[in-house]
Amino acid sequence: MTPPQPDTTNRPTPQAPAVEPLTAEDFGRRLERATTAAAEAGLAGLVITPGPDLAHLTGYQPVRTERFTGLFLTPGADPLLVVPTLERGDAEAAPGAPAFRIADWTDGTDPYRAALARLGSNAPYGVSDGTWALHLLALQSAVPGSRFAALTDALPMLRAVKDADELARLTAAGAAADETYRRILQVPFAGRTEDDIAADLAALLLELGHSQVDFTVVGSGPNGANPHHEAGGRTLVTGDTVVLDFGGLKDGYGSDTSRTVHLGPDPDPEVLRVHEVVRHAQQAAFEAVRPGIACQEIDRVARAVIEEAGYGAYFIHRTGHGIGVTTHEPPYMIEGEQQELVPGMCFSIEPGVYLPGRFGVRIEDIVTVTETGGRRLNNTSRDLAIVH
Amino acid sequence: MTPPQPDTTNRPTPQAPAVEPLTAEDFGRRLERATTAAAEAGLAGLVITPGPDLAHLTGYQPVRTERFTGLFLTPGADPLLVVPTLERGDAEAAPGAPAFRIADWTDGTDPYRAALARLGSNAPYGVSDGTWALHLLALQSAVPGSRFAALTDALPMLRAVKDADELARLTAAGAAADETYRRILQVPFAGRTEDDIAADLAALLLELGHSQVDFTVVGSGPNGANPHHEAGGRTLVTGDTVVLDFGGLKDGYGSDTSRTVHLGPDPDPEVLRVHEVVRHAQQAAFEAVRPGIACQEIDRVARAVIEEAGYGAYFIHRTGHGIGVTTHEPPYMIEGEQQELVPGMCFSIEPGVYLPGRFGVRIEDIVTVTETGGRRLNNTSRDLAIVH
Repeated sequence: MTPPQPDTTNRPTPQAPAVEPLTAEDFGRRLERATTAAAEAGLAGLVITPGPDLAHLTGYQPVRTERFTGLFLTPGADPLLVVPTLERGDAEAAPGAPAFRIADWTDGTDPYRAALARLGSNAPYGVSDGTWALHLLALQSAVPGSRFAALTDALPMLRAVKDADELARLTAAGAAADETYRRILQVPFAGRTEDDIAADLAALLLELGHSQVDFTVVGSGPNGANPHHEAGGRTLVTGDTVVLDFGGLKDGYGSDTSRTVHLGPDPDPEVLRVHEVVRHAQQAAFEAVRPGIACQEIDRVARAVIEEAGYGAYFIHRTGHGIGVTTHEPPYMIEGEQQELVPGMCFSIEPGVYLPGRFGVRIEDIVTVTETGGRRLNNTSRDLAIVH
Repeated sequence: MTPPQPDTTNRPTPQAPAVEPLTAEDFGRRLERATTAAAEAGLAGLVITPGPDLAHLTGYQPVRTERFTGLFLTPGADPLLVVPTLERGDAEAAPGAPAFRIADWTDGTDPYRAALARLGSNAPYGVSDGTWALHLLALQSAVPGSRFAALTDALPMLRAVKDADELARLTAAGAAADETYRRILQVPFAGRTEDDIAADLAALLLELGHSQVDFTVVGSGPNGANPHHEAGGRTLVTGDTVVLDFGGLKDGYGSDTSRTVHLGPDPDPEVLRVHEVVRHAQQAAFEAVRPGIACQEIDRVARAVIEEAGYGAYFIHRTGHGIGVTTHEPPYMIEGEQQELVPGMCFSIEPGVYLPGRFGVRIEDIVTVTETGGRRLNNTSRDLAIVH
């Protein structure tokens, strides 16, 4: 048997229907919605810098550098994108460009001057989480008295509720991740390393239409007990329990799924017991999903199942995170997060149990909130699969 | 003739001598030096977050996420790295770990609490440029009255002066980029696209020991007149002038060099004239390098040559930027930058002329400041090479 070979000349996406490109009108609607949402949240406006917020609102995806780029959204004014002169052509070529004005600044001039007129309020401005301190401090100092709040705190819902276009993309990304899982079950595990399996996962994700692989966790045996472990040189042997957690971006939207598999015929009784506990926790949390439920409730439901089974001390992370143009964003399914679920939200449900020095188990699906409950975007079997 | 094929199983580095791994003692010295430099700059301390500053000071290179990681450096106290519990193991495995203390925080607790004791001063704290606004705003709000300044403004020299270990790495990276240039001159240009040549450049950089390719600019004909153009589908034809600008990281340190080549035997007289002007500007700026000269003077010298030749309006960017654990960092060779050159600084000298719709010319070397002048880390011919 040989590991799967990616075919980069021809990337079939058997599970993933084609999606239509987003238009300037789509981005125009997103810009309007964001500006309105900011006002409703008591913000004077938004300062959006390169990263997922800007990609979501304009389709423009420059890299973050020491040269300032920022989109200013304020009610009653046209959206304004400030860019370095050198990058003006790139900004004009963005799919959303017809929906905003562009102002540019040249090396040696003050890039923050253009912001002055837009930052004259007493209310705080929402600013993209990943805005560089270099730029935020310059804005704070250019406009004395200006106040800012990170979007995760001030407007966590900015990208959280997905429209139909976005749901189609997330569904297609999830289907491609599911097919990746089905195929990885067919490759040989015994005698190969975690890194080998991780490379297979990455190749499959790309073959199945992903443009970017964000993570390919292969946590075998004791490595599986470290939820942050990615993959390494450890060779897989019969008797290993193996956590697989992989995802990336397909057509600009994320996938993220985890399954735990066992190498060889007869898992240890505690492996079977822990796997059942995690499966029940994941199922219970999924069944709790419906509009109006607080995010922390999803975490509590999963945690209660694991605590009742006596493994509470070994579930050492939150239950989930949002997903969209990134694989990791608000809302977070965590104690203390009182944000209520809204139809169109998409997030992971991924409880786990990690027994130090022995093994780990994690089961993860992306779930979207519907009018009446939840719908899974990952649909492979959640039973403990046996690999060879 | 076929384009070069990367051999990823065996990466010879004919021009690049091996470099020794950095030790915990090396990082300890860097931490001490940074803490002292901060005090000398009037700062109460430093808050270093994931990115090049943290890599330089500790060897620890986590990705930037919404989970806070920060290194606190304050005179009279041990360096303290605050990390998410999930990532503690990774932090402990960093090469510099013996030189700092580690405190961790768990999902659901306040990651900024550990910062309180360290941020009790009236003086501003220097903070890494790329610190996320999410984290900076949380620190500002956790410690009312605390003040922060971006390191580019408050301590631009933090990583600017390279020690012998770093110079050896930058020299090796430059030699690998030079060999990349010599080899790209041998590949066919005519009838292939910019993207094809860019892929060849990337493959050569990797084959010659780079671990990461940051950019492979191939600006042919009119595309060369846009200094921000990277590479595209344009097919190269005889008569094209082509700007090549490429670099990345090798053993953790950067390379960055540009040369302009011509496809075919008889360049237009204005191509030859502009190329000579840029070559003279680059040479004059290089000859101006010595300790005590202000950065802006390097820009002025290059600009004066180009202005005198009548092309001043077409030199539309600064003359250079620093390089180290990134390919783009302070100090900047730009009007208004009065920072004086110090032995051990490394930066690019890269004047260019861009004639809209026609062609561009750029010539770039990395230069290090010596006790008496400058030394180039790129040493390939700066004549206009003819390719085929």
